[in-house]
Amino acid sequence: MNSNIRVLGFDADDTLWDNEIFYKETEQEFCRILSPFMNTEEISRELFKIEVQNMELYGYGIKAFSLSLIETAIRISSSEIPASTISKIIELGKAMLRKPVNLINGIEDVLKILQGKYKLIIVTKGDLLDQERKLLKSGLSGYFHHIEIMSDKKEENYKSLLNHLDIEASQFIMVGNSLKSDILPVLGLGGYAIYVPSDTTWLYEQIENENIESEKFVKVKSIRDIIEILH
Amino acid sequence: MNSNIRVLGFDADDTLWDNEIFYKETEQEFCRILSPFMNTEEISRELFKIEVQNMELYGYGIKAFSLSLIETAIRISSSEIPASTISKIIELGKAMLRKPVNLINGIEDVLKILQGKYKLIIVTKGDLLDQERKLLKSGLSGYFHHIEIMSDKKEENYKSLLNHLDIEASQFIMVGNSLKSDILPVLGLGGYAIYVPSDTTWLYEQIENENIESEKFVKVKSIRDIIEILH
Repeated sequence: MNSNIRVLGFDADDTLWDNEIFYKETEQEFCRILSPFMNTEEISRELFKIEVQNMELYGYGIKAFSLSLIETAIRISSSEIPASTISKIIELGKAMLRKPVNLINGIEDVLKILQGKYKLIIVTKGDLLDQERKLLKSGLSGYFHHIEIMSDKKEENYKSLLNHLDIEASQFIMVGNSLKSDILPVLGLGGYAIYVPSDTTWLYEQIENENIESEKFVKVKSIRDIIEILH
Repeated sequence: MNSNIRVLGFDADDTLWDNEIFYKETEQEFCRILSPFMNTEEISRELFKIEVQNMELYGYGIKAFSLSLIETAIRISSSEIPASTISKIIELGKAMLRKPVNLINGIEDVLKILQGKYKLIIVTKGDLLDQERKLLKSGLSGYFHHIEIMSDKKEENYKSLLNHLDIEASQFIMVGNSLKSDILPVLGLGGYAIYVPSDTTWLYEQIENENIESEKFVKVKSIRDIIEILH
């Protein structure tokens, strides 16, 4: 890759540490709790619909998810759900906020090697407090210059980031597991992107056409593979 | 004040635009809805207790407030509250997120005068998306270099901010309506602070001893008064 690269941006959720798995587990438990009212598939469909409807107002993160879970539970039960069950749903959300941080296999080795060679930053969306807390729990903060928490990861958000970092797009590589949020907007601005798919990807982050033709784009199997590319 | 000042930080909520009034109005409506279960004073006390309990996990902002409202409603009704009422509470939170932005009287004149003389930034806590949305709605973004949204406003958060801005505390003035969040931590680091009290202050932001003795501290009646101090 280009030798002018100065800044490496790492997505956080499912690139540095597990995340989507906790959402999936919580959704399963939610479907179990609501099984007297509807089957799992229909509940999941309704939840996704409500999450997307609320996205503009609530944005990303666990608090937004918790509020959408409650709204979904009321909707699919036709307001028959007892308050004690809504309490349980609130607790599901709180339990997510208290989860330990499980690092992605190999990430610390990779950061050790890259440290000092590039300015490393975290570029993430979601809830401010929750992301800061996960970074603290992860023990990885020492590797990063700083953490950028954005309300969304669209081209305009990355543009502000590059201005803020005072670099050209061609001096920036983004590493992440979402084509929609980590890869396409950065390529769109003329930056570089390395795609490290994760096992589970939220429906909202999925895109139809996964074929990307660009000399500034690489897809790898594991986070460890980025070392070879950057050397 | 010191002529070395380079950066002026403005708190956002209740310094640039109204905020606490919307929380108060929502709380009043919440108490009205729950009046079959408890009187207003007791509901408010219970709500505040739950908000403080949830602070570490949820942080600040309307989504955190909405979740605490729901939890309070369930608690004080001993889980007797119907789901349809919880729907209404969710809608109260959404209505807050959709509120128009009412600027504090005089703020735009003040920013016009200070613009170009200092680097102006917004320093706020709360929800990332909501604060960005309010800034956009306010029409004030053009006056500010950028917006810093923090998970909290303690000395350590301001310390990171100063590092990030690459300035000494003595080159920074913070302007805000909360002694606890805008004034004391900045004075603690050796910075300057201008206190512009607002009509309503959230109980959580109130401190016992309001007497501050510091040559780096000024209390003014209106935001317009800061012009005279800075000239």
